[in-house]
Amino acid sequence: MNNMENKRAPSMWARAGVVGLCGLSIFALPGAAAAQASKPASRPSFSSKEIQMVAPALENYTQGLLLGDVWARPDLSPRDRSIVTLAVLIARNQPLELPFYLNRALDNGVTPGEISEIITHLAFYSGWPNAMAAVSATRPVFEKRKITSKQLPSANVQLLPLDKEADDKRAKSVDENFGKVAPGVVQYTTDALFRDLWLRPGLAPRDRSMVTVSALVASGQVAQITYHLNRAMDSGLAEKQASEMLTQLAFHAGWPNVFSAMPVFKEVFEKRQGSAGK
Amino acid sequence: MNNMENKRAPSMWARAGVVGLCGLSIFALPGAAAAQASKPASRPSFSSKEIQMVAPALENYTQGLLLGDVWARPDLSPRDRSIVTLAVLIARNQPLELPFYLNRALDNGVTPGEISEIITHLAFYSGWPNAMAAVSATRPVFEKRKITSKQLPSANVQLLPLDKEADDKRAKSVDENFGKVAPGVVQYTTDALFRDLWLRPGLAPRDRSMVTVSALVASGQVAQITYHLNRAMDSGLAEKQASEMLTQLAFHAGWPNVFSAMPVFKEVFEKRQGSAGK
Amino acid sequence: MNNMENKRAPSMWARAGVVGLCGLSIFALPGAAAAQASKPASRPSFSSKEIQMVAPALENYTQGLLLGDVWARPDLSPRDRSIVTLAVLIARNQPLELPFYLNRALDNGVTPGEISEIITHLAFYSGWPNAMAAVSATRPVFEKRKITSKQLPSANVQLLPLDKEADDKRAKSVDENFGKVAPGVVQYTTDALFRDLWLRPGLAPRDRSMVTVSALVASGQVAQITYHLNRAMDSGLAEKQASEMLTQLAFHAGWPNVFSAMPVFKEVFEKRQGSAGK
Repeated sequence: MNNMENKRAPSMWARAGVVGLCGLSIFALPGAAAAQASKPASRPSFSSKEIQMVAPALENYTQGLLLGDVWARPDLSPRDRSIVTLAVLIARNQPLELPFYLNRALDNGVTPGEISEIITHLAFYSGWPNAMAAVSATRPVFEKRKITSKQLPSANVQLLPLDKEADDKRAKSVDENFGKVAPGVVQYTTDALFRDLWLRPGLAPRDRSMVTVSALVASGQVAQITYHLNRAMDSGLAEKQASEMLTQLAFHAGWPNVFSAMPVFKEVFEKRQGSAGK
Repeated sequence: MNNMENKRAPSMWARAGVVGLCGLSIFALPGAAAAQASKPASRPSFSSKEIQMVAPALENYTQGLLLGDVWARPDLSPRDRSIVTLAVLIARNQPLELPFYLNRALDNGVTPGEISEIITHLAFYSGWPNAMAAVSATRPVFEKRKITSKQLPSANVQLLPLDKEADDKRAKSVDENFGKVAPGVVQYTTDALFRDLWLRPGLAPRDRSMVTVSALVASGQVAQITYHLNRAMDSGLAEKQASEMLTQLAFHAGWPNVFSAMPVFKEVFEKRQGSAGK
Repeated sequence: MNNMENKRAPSMWARAGVVGLCGLSIFALPGAAAAQASKPASRPSFSSKEIQMVAPALENYTQGLLLGDVWARPDLSPRDRSIVTLAVLIARNQPLELPFYLNRALDNGVTPGEISEIITHLAFYSGWPNAMAAVSATRPVFEKRKITSKQLPSANVQLLPLDKEADDKRAKSVDENFGKVAPGVVQYTTDALFRDLWLRPGLAPRDRSMVTVSALVASGQVAQITYHLNRAMDSGLAEKQASEMLTQLAFHAGWPNVFSAMPVFKEVFEKRQGSAGK
């Protein structure tokens, strides 16, 4: 969590004028620069200099605002920000940016096994082609770090216990609504998703929900946020963390997606009154 | 339709443990493996082994659940599943996955002319850049199979007869609503879309509607599903097939898009009561 | 604006039969062909011939309908059409098509500085990864035209004056709604967006709004169109221009996005009654 060591300069980013780190990788956090100098694995596609050749203001916002300020905000850890950002990139099928953010995630404490499960999870929530593109972007990152499949959750694992009562209720509601409309979808939603994928222990339920909510916001799919945000908070995501996910999402998935999601977050927070700030 | 020969093992996919086909192309259906061995045209981007290096569970789901189970479900033919999947990939601009699925489509009985018309159709429904990316991905596939433009519908064809009464009604409604707001859009909707593109005989009206509905679901555009799903069913798409499209779409465009579409499908099915199962 | 010289042939495009310009770049407008012959910078990915090898009808629509007719419509200038189209490509993360449309934009009078600001603007409205992909696609275009960062707005500029009363109202409304839900988003919306990014003088407020509205329509984000379309029209976008943006967007972002946006445009137009056609 060395990102947290960065001094925040909340009102200086926008007109900083001289950028402190010209020529360094735009993605290297100021505070992490020294550490990363000896980690050549984190190779971003763009240098500060390259961005300045097209959009000097963007380079300044990237260094001062995004990396110097947003990523260092206290209410969500750099590890969690990395998980949110990976979910956005996979959900929006932006594999070009993945290698850098994968390395950043590994540096921030996300394990290879968790990355493996995030990709598998999003095959269902963002579609198979998105997951396949993510596999392709991840393989060279794993190879360079000598991460082998022995470090990854196998296909055949001991599942977490099912909260059968709660899931029976969920299944009943889905079946009543859509059992006749789309029996295939309803069957797989129970058998493959909630009684298999969601119970895989390689990604904590709270993190799995955080990935799902991030993908929903990043794809403009507001209708299903209510269920999954409640599930995330039931699994331990604090309101402050959920709130701060929105800040991270605004920058990586764009302001409009976040403005569409905020009313839903608001309603969920209000209905859960009392759990705030935990 | 040799996919149908696969034995289904509905409840075994998830925890199959040992994957039966390690090292084979992940995209080669078990039942089709022998046939495809002599068809080097179907070259997927990833092998089972490569996926296992990043996400062993995803590899298992791909082999057992997606290819072994979903693609082999009876209510929608492999040909139709291929059309739905191509529409998803073009609508979501995922050209990297197209070459494999194009070959699979051709193997499943989709003709080169139909592929040509699907791409042209989606220029209008998913935007010109999506169609251009699809052209780029399709050309080498056609070349390798020695498919020439002589096998494709020419630009200048004898159009199908127009149901003038029905289309006058449609045009009148659109014009009353939006004639003043966007006269250009209204004009092209009639002249270029419904009285030209939709009447091209190279893609059956039922298939054209299936492509349109697939693109709408895959893009999260629920508002226009009602009109186009009704049109699809008027043109011969059975309710069971429409329902099973949702299963195919869930895996290729992600669960959230399908959950957003299901209420609309439900309403259309209910309003058409009596036509079920045709 | 030499595009305007093209003779329009409104009803001939669809069945033109013989395409007048086979073998020429599909993107070279008929009227601009001679001029562009000496500008090798405009290198499209595809030639007419290549498109014909996959989709002869699409090639015909591209030449006759899109380039010969749509881009030449009078109510929106080629410059503005270029801005709308760049916004679509960045918002939908389609960098492959960017180089051609960037060259076209520069030919149509969009300045390098405006392009720089469009990319920076969309980092916030479409997400950072979209902007980074746009930077990557733009750099070689700028290099080939010998555009250096000296021609671009620097990070540190004299901002336009703030309409403090109006923005205080906006900020108050956002804060009341979402101040507790997402304090980070609310803070950056004011500090980084409306009191910094939006006041950068390198892109006129009217154009900045046009970019924002285009990105919203192209991403299917209808909820925020009302605010930004009003802002665009307050800043000088005429109703006829806004209307014609929809035609341009239909072809580049797909019909469904435009059909979802039209009711919102309609409502905005009607509420502003009296300002039409200005």
